[in-house]
Amino acid sequence: MPKHHRKVKKYVQKKAFTSPGTLAYVGKEVPIDTVVKLVEFNEEMYQQKIVRVMSECHPDFNENHTNWLDVDGVHEVSIIESIGKHYHLHPLLLEDVLNTEQKPKLEHFGEHNIFVIMKMLQYNELINEIESEHVGLVLGKNYVISFQEVHKSDVFGAIFERLKASVGKTRKGKADYLFYSLCDLVIDNYYVVIEKFSEKLEELEIKIIENPHPNDQTLLYELRRSLMQIRKAILPLRDIFGALTREDSQLIQPSTNIYLRDVYDHVLQTLETIESYREMIENIQNIYLTSLSNKMNSVMKTLTVFTAIFMPLTFIAGVYGMNFENMPELRNPHGYFYTLGSMVIIGIVFWVYFKWKKYV
Amino acid sequence: MPKHHRKVKKYVQKKAFTSPGTLAYVGKEVPIDTVVKLVEFNEEMYQQKIVRVMSECHPDFNENHTNWLDVDGVHEVSIIESIGKHYHLHPLLLEDVLNTEQKPKLEHFGEHNIFVIMKMLQYNELINEIESEHVGLVLGKNYVISFQEVHKSDVFGAIFERLKASVGKTRKGKADYLFYSLCDLVIDNYYVVIEKFSEKLEELEIKIIENPHPNDQTLLYELRRSLMQIRKAILPLRDIFGALTREDSQLIQPSTNIYLRDVYDHVLQTLETIESYREMIENIQNIYLTSLSNKMNSVMKTLTVFTAIFMPLTFIAGVYGMNFENMPELRNPHGYFYTLGSMVIIGIVFWVYFKWKKYV
Amino acid sequence: MPKHHRKVKKYVQKKAFTSPGTLAYVGKEVPIDTVVKLVEFNEEMYQQKIVRVMSECHPDFNENHTNWLDVDGVHEVSIIESIGKHYHLHPLLLEDVLNTEQKPKLEHFGEHNIFVIMKMLQYNELINEIESEHVGLVLGKNYVISFQEVHKSDVFGAIFERLKASVGKTRKGKADYLFYSLCDLVIDNYYVVIEKFSEKLEELEIKIIENPHPNDQTLLYELRRSLMQIRKAILPLRDIFGALTREDSQLIQPSTNIYLRDVYDHVLQTLETIESYREMIENIQNIYLTSLSNKMNSVMKTLTVFTAIFMPLTFIAGVYGMNFENMPELRNPHGYFYTLGSMVIIGIVFWVYFKWKKYV
Amino acid sequence: MPKHHRKVKKYVQKKAFTSPGTLAYVGKEVPIDTVVKLVEFNEEMYQQKIVRVMSECHPDFNENHTNWLDVDGVHEVSIIESIGKHYHLHPLLLEDVLNTEQKPKLEHFGEHNIFVIMKMLQYNELINEIESEHVGLVLGKNYVISFQEVHKSDVFGAIFERLKASVGKTRKGKADYLFYSLCDLVIDNYYVVIEKFSEKLEELEIKIIENPHPNDQTLLYELRRSLMQIRKAILPLRDIFGALTREDSQLIQPSTNIYLRDVYDHVLQTLETIESYREMIENIQNIYLTSLSNKMNSVMKTLTVFTAIFMPLTFIAGVYGMNFENMPELRNPHGYFYTLGSMVIIGIVFWVYFKWKKYV
Amino acid sequence: MPKHHRKVKKYVQKKAFTSPGTLAYVGKEVPIDTVVKLVEFNEEMYQQKIVRVMSECHPDFNENHTNWLDVDGVHEVSIIESIGKHYHLHPLLLEDVLNTEQKPKLEHFGEHNIFVIMKMLQYNELINEIESEHVGLVLGKNYVISFQEVHKSDVFGAIFERLKASVGKTRKGKADYLFYSLCDLVIDNYYVVIEKFSEKLEELEIKIIENPHPNDQTLLYELRRSLMQIRKAILPLRDIFGALTREDSQLIQPSTNIYLRDVYDHVLQTLETIESYREMIENIQNIYLTSLSNKMNSVMKTLTVFTAIFMPLTFIAGVYGMNFENMPELRNPHGYFYTLGSMVIIGIVFWVYFKWKKYV
Repeated sequence: MPKHHRKVKKYVQKKAFTSPGTLAYVGKEVPIDTVVKLVEFNEEMYQQKIVRVMSECHPDFNENHTNWLDVDGVHEVSIIESIGKHYHLHPLLLEDVLNTEQKPKLEHFGEHNIFVIMKMLQYNELINEIESEHVGLVLGKNYVISFQEVHKSDVFGAIFERLKASVGKTRKGKADYLFYSLCDLVIDNYYVVIEKFSEKLEELEIKIIENPHPNDQTLLYELRRSLMQIRKAILPLRDIFGALTREDSQLIQPSTNIYLRDVYDHVLQTLETIESYREMIENIQNIYLTSLSNKMNSVMKTLTVFTAIFMPLTFIAGVYGMNFENMPELRNPHGYFYTLGSMVIIGIVFWVYFKWKKYV
Repeated sequence: MPKHHRKVKKYVQKKAFTSPGTLAYVGKEVPIDTVVKLVEFNEEMYQQKIVRVMSECHPDFNENHTNWLDVDGVHEVSIIESIGKHYHLHPLLLEDVLNTEQKPKLEHFGEHNIFVIMKMLQYNELINEIESEHVGLVLGKNYVISFQEVHKSDVFGAIFERLKASVGKTRKGKADYLFYSLCDLVIDNYYVVIEKFSEKLEELEIKIIENPHPNDQTLLYELRRSLMQIRKAILPLRDIFGALTREDSQLIQPSTNIYLRDVYDHVLQTLETIESYREMIENIQNIYLTSLSNKMNSVMKTLTVFTAIFMPLTFIAGVYGMNFENMPELRNPHGYFYTLGSMVIIGIVFWVYFKWKKYV
Repeated sequence: MPKHHRKVKKYVQKKAFTSPGTLAYVGKEVPIDTVVKLVEFNEEMYQQKIVRVMSECHPDFNENHTNWLDVDGVHEVSIIESIGKHYHLHPLLLEDVLNTEQKPKLEHFGEHNIFVIMKMLQYNELINEIESEHVGLVLGKNYVISFQEVHKSDVFGAIFERLKASVGKTRKGKADYLFYSLCDLVIDNYYVVIEKFSEKLEELEIKIIENPHPNDQTLLYELRRSLMQIRKAILPLRDIFGALTREDSQLIQPSTNIYLRDVYDHVLQTLETIESYREMIENIQNIYLTSLSNKMNSVMKTLTVFTAIFMPLTFIAGVYGMNFENMPELRNPHGYFYTLGSMVIIGIVFWVYFKWKKYV
Repeated sequence: MPKHHRKVKKYVQKKAFTSPGTLAYVGKEVPIDTVVKLVEFNEEMYQQKIVRVMSECHPDFNENHTNWLDVDGVHEVSIIESIGKHYHLHPLLLEDVLNTEQKPKLEHFGEHNIFVIMKMLQYNELINEIESEHVGLVLGKNYVISFQEVHKSDVFGAIFERLKASVGKTRKGKADYLFYSLCDLVIDNYYVVIEKFSEKLEELEIKIIENPHPNDQTLLYELRRSLMQIRKAILPLRDIFGALTREDSQLIQPSTNIYLRDVYDHVLQTLETIESYREMIENIQNIYLTSLSNKMNSVMKTLTVFTAIFMPLTFIAGVYGMNFENMPELRNPHGYFYTLGSMVIIGIVFWVYFKWKKYV
Repeated sequence: MPKHHRKVKKYVQKKAFTSPGTLAYVGKEVPIDTVVKLVEFNEEMYQQKIVRVMSECHPDFNENHTNWLDVDGVHEVSIIESIGKHYHLHPLLLEDVLNTEQKPKLEHFGEHNIFVIMKMLQYNELINEIESEHVGLVLGKNYVISFQEVHKSDVFGAIFERLKASVGKTRKGKADYLFYSLCDLVIDNYYVVIEKFSEKLEELEIKIIENPHPNDQTLLYELRRSLMQIRKAILPLRDIFGALTREDSQLIQPSTNIYLRDVYDHVLQTLETIESYREMIENIQNIYLTSLSNKMNSVMKTLTVFTAIFMPLTFIAGVYGMNFENMPELRNPHGYFYTLGSMVIIGIVFWVYFKWKKYV
């Protein structure tokens, strides 16, 4: 939480009130250099190189190949800016790439580019928090440019492997198929995060049903917050992939369309799962509150039983503890035992009465 | 519950991050072999055979007949794959057939196939749980291919019987009418499951209204979960059959349209019933909570009555138990009886007062 | 309630899994015979006869008249079937007529028939329950066929009277105007039921605001259920009459359209009233719960006041009841009276304190 | 409340089940005669007369003037009927004019008339209730007919004044501008009612936040009911003026359109205000409930502190009040004072402990 | 709050019931004079002057420049009126400019003007309240007219600076780009206000989770009110900028469209943030209530433990304080010590029992 808000503050300080279109990085400080990889491939060949001096050597995209420029790290404004200039990317696109606070969105820049912002989610076991990574994908005529916030987790590693090994349809496909593969990968990741979430929720569910504890309320609250965070990352994707599915752009071939529909389908499925967890959290919350009421009832019954049994007995003891000179019972040699006897009987009667009223 | 999540885990482990289009079975392990039946019929004839060696003998669909390929079991990837190859089914279709976690959906594959995924629900009395079975239906030009998760329950048995016996319109109909009949059967099943559900809910309702118990909250929670599970299976069918009703495909004849509208109607009706049960559960929950409050009130009143009656009496007894040398009342020969009398009167006065305040 | 569910069971047993299009009655057993009336009228004449032997004598509709076939009772499948055959009604239409569980719906069967299912509601004072009656209306070129579940209440009696007496526009109108009149009648009935409901709700409202009782929760719950039942019957009519209003069918003349819009308007108004009662019930529920809390608070305050006043006094009495040999106060001749005096003062001080804290 | 329901009953008794189109007044009995005023004006002249004998002298609308027929009182069916006949108003329009229970609506009767029903709201300080007045406006080619339930409040007085004094655009405008002016007036009135409402709500809000009282719940409930009543009158106007804004009728000039849009805007603003008050009431309700819980907590703490301090002390006193022959402490000459001292110490220790636990 | 309602009252008093189109200022009294600045600029030049005597010297807009008339203060009706006359602004536009209660809206006045009303929000640290400022923007062919409520905060100062210094695209842009820049500035401001809000909310969140206090409920309520106020200012902007994005007006160039889409995007993002804070407040509210219940439970347990341990002990002491002549235990020389011992044992047993039941 504190981290999240530190970032927002930065955003406000750096970005608001500057002239729109002015490029500025918004996000956490990163000590690592940006790494830019260029991958060229078609059905026959596959070639990968690291682009070192961005300002001097701009890779030109080979017309006959599918080109993939993978940018690891968006914190070096000058690199992003030079890539932007070279490939004629719109300033607002670059602004969104640099703003790691930007929510997922789809933008069309004329017929040249389709631009998608997504959030890569990862569950950090150490600090028990979901971490979000900013990912931007630009689809052009025969190229894809992918921007990633930091390369802590090698997000697109699997695709590199698949391309190299020529597994599946990936290498036969054009830029739009690559674009789809990258989207698919990000969304597959959500399953993993949601699974982690569901494990924690079910643990808590069993605990609360069996033996609720005051702290559980806070744990439930934290899970609800995590779920809200996940949902925030995924919800906009419904509209984004819904729109891509109905897309009429020349950048996306009809044959790729059915794959995008599949991604859309996965997004819907994920959202439904999230909704059902939301409802589940609400229900667990209800169970928790009801069990509190039940406990209170049980505590109150204990109190009432003790009070109702011992109060009359203490009263009787008090009566025979009075110091009146003339109290005939006191002189009765068996008075004490009769009194003890009545006390036992009264106690038993009340006990049975409360037993019958389900108080004990 | 645990079962459900074990499956999701499998999905994540097996499926996420593999190249899209790679076929893999996602679901429970099944020790039984897949059985493939081929039924050919038209108004005059009916013929049924079991297709044993899929890899060698591919059944070709007879142009003049309606063909129905019924696949019992989707866990043998090679069989599904070979069926897919032979009938030119799209890889994504096969992927959905193999993924028993796939939620219900409708997919068009060009003009060749309409593909529907549904969930068959069954109430398992033994473990008191609703079991879900994965069903996939492919409608082609003159054929229907049906995939079922396992053939534990002979889901489509009734249709076989009806075709053999030439009862009803089923045999006169073409592939689209057969397709409709299969859908109709699955949806008829929901009535049975919902009826089971409603029986349990009404039992609990009566119990909670008459005599709520702390455990009832958990029972109610479990029913709510079951209802959510049923709803999850049926909700997507609204869109699916809504779309099929407005379908303009050549695969569905106008005369079949009115039948699909009828199925759509049943789905809507079922969803409405589910909604009303949802609301009912919420209301029962409210009754439960209110009755807890009412009980608490009643316990508190008992406590208050006991305390308020015996506290003053004990106090009086305490006063006359003091050991002051000069306490004139103590020497009064009737003091003891006067005191006892006042105690009785005070007790009665408080009792009447609390009676009047509706405490007892 | 039990009745409702008995019916669903019947439905499941009889209907589910039979071949679609197979006709079967779904509903309560009825010992009375079906009565079929044929009314022919135009501006000049009015003629009414009872059609006895359906299988032999099929009434043909007179081209120059408006014909109205009124079928009282839908439990005799053979009669419904023979009517269906004679007038070329679609099998699914007949299926819906026979299924008294069918929710309200509008169906077009080509250009020949507009078919509407509605629910007639009636408040049964004896068993304090709302009873629902199944009504089906078929509009054809110059005829209307009306099906009613049983003729316990002579639902359409008013229309017969009006036609005979030639009151209002009814007799001048064509089949579509008759169709409208019948719909209007059913909807007018809802006002009566809702009025009954509102009377009961207001009684309960006043009772709960003035003096809530544990049972009121159950009464409120039953009213909520009744309201849900009414809403279920009326909600689909919004879409049905909305669609009829925009209808472009040759069966409905433009001049009748404005009347259907009026019916639509009444449906909307009724639904709004229902919504406001729903909200009212929720608010009464809140009042009820809050008044429980208020009562609890008041009980607790009583308890606290008694405890807090008498505990210290009893303690003081206890102190002077101790048997130490050297307790100087005990020998003071006025000690007893001083002590009693202090007790009175302490009691008054606490009383004033709690008065000031609004505990008493 | 009772008034409201008396009216509904009348409606049911008089109106339901009569032939549609039969005219009948539905509403409160009014002892005053209907007054019909005819105003003719254009930019140059202004003329106003009272039309006394409706049946004999029908005013004809002057083609060159804008004509306004203002009908105060809709309870005399014959007058409404004769107006209707003379100006060819549709029977359903007259039915709606006579039915003071009719909710707001917009109706087009061909190209001849646009008909709007609205509710004039007024806050009656005496009985602390919002009163609703039925207003119907008919826009024709060069005339407006306005119907008002009773002329208790001279609803349209301001417009008469404005026309006479030739203030603003009103007199230059045609019938459609007059029509707009009347609508605008009714909606301006809502601001006044809502302001009254907001005053009462804020009073209650401050009271509940500072010092909640059991009765406040009922007051809040009544405010909620008032708000629902206001909302019910205004909500349909959103659709009505939304439709009028998009209106393509020849009766409304394009230049008037922008004014209707302004009215539409006011309606939206009013509805938003109502929504925010709704949310505010809900929040106040929450505060109220929470403060009940807080009070309960505080009462319980007081009880616990008293019990926990005096119970052990009374116990100690009880111990030394026992009559054993051999109790060495009793013979100690300072035993009494030691005991008193320990009691004070124990009392202080508990007090400090509960102070530390924030119980006191 | 009081301020807000004082304003509404003024509105009602001044504005309602006057002829529509009559100009009147609605808002707080302002002692400062209105300041009107005229800025003319194009890519080469920038010129700024203060327009002093509005009635005599009307600035004409230079055709070759982009002209910006900035009006600080809308309380002097005559100035607004004269500007309106000179630039042919519609009377309804001026009415909206003068009404500081007017909610945000977008209005088209033919092809000549696009008019937007927005609310500038500012957090006033002194009175801990969000202040709202009325801003109106008129876009014409080559000019923008901006109206601001008061110039307490120099709202558009940053734009002046940017234009002077020729930073960014602002000066190259035409009137539509300036219009966009002003909108963007207002919306950037919301980030600042929301950040302030979020800081306060998180403080309260931590406080409530760790140690809830009765007052926190009121603080939470105030935050909820602030959030509602912010939401009220921003929600209409969604529709406004959504519409501007789809705008087909000649006043907005296609190249500016993408910038407006960016603003639209920011509005959506802000609304989402607001929604998530809303949900967060609700959850905190739940935590608060649950912690109240938990506390109550803990208080009740303390009470029960004290009562249940000391009641039996006091009873035993009472028994041996009875004055029967024949009580054999009393004469036992060790009776006292045996009794004390049993008391200790009973106390320990109960203590352990409650420890086991998690009461202490």
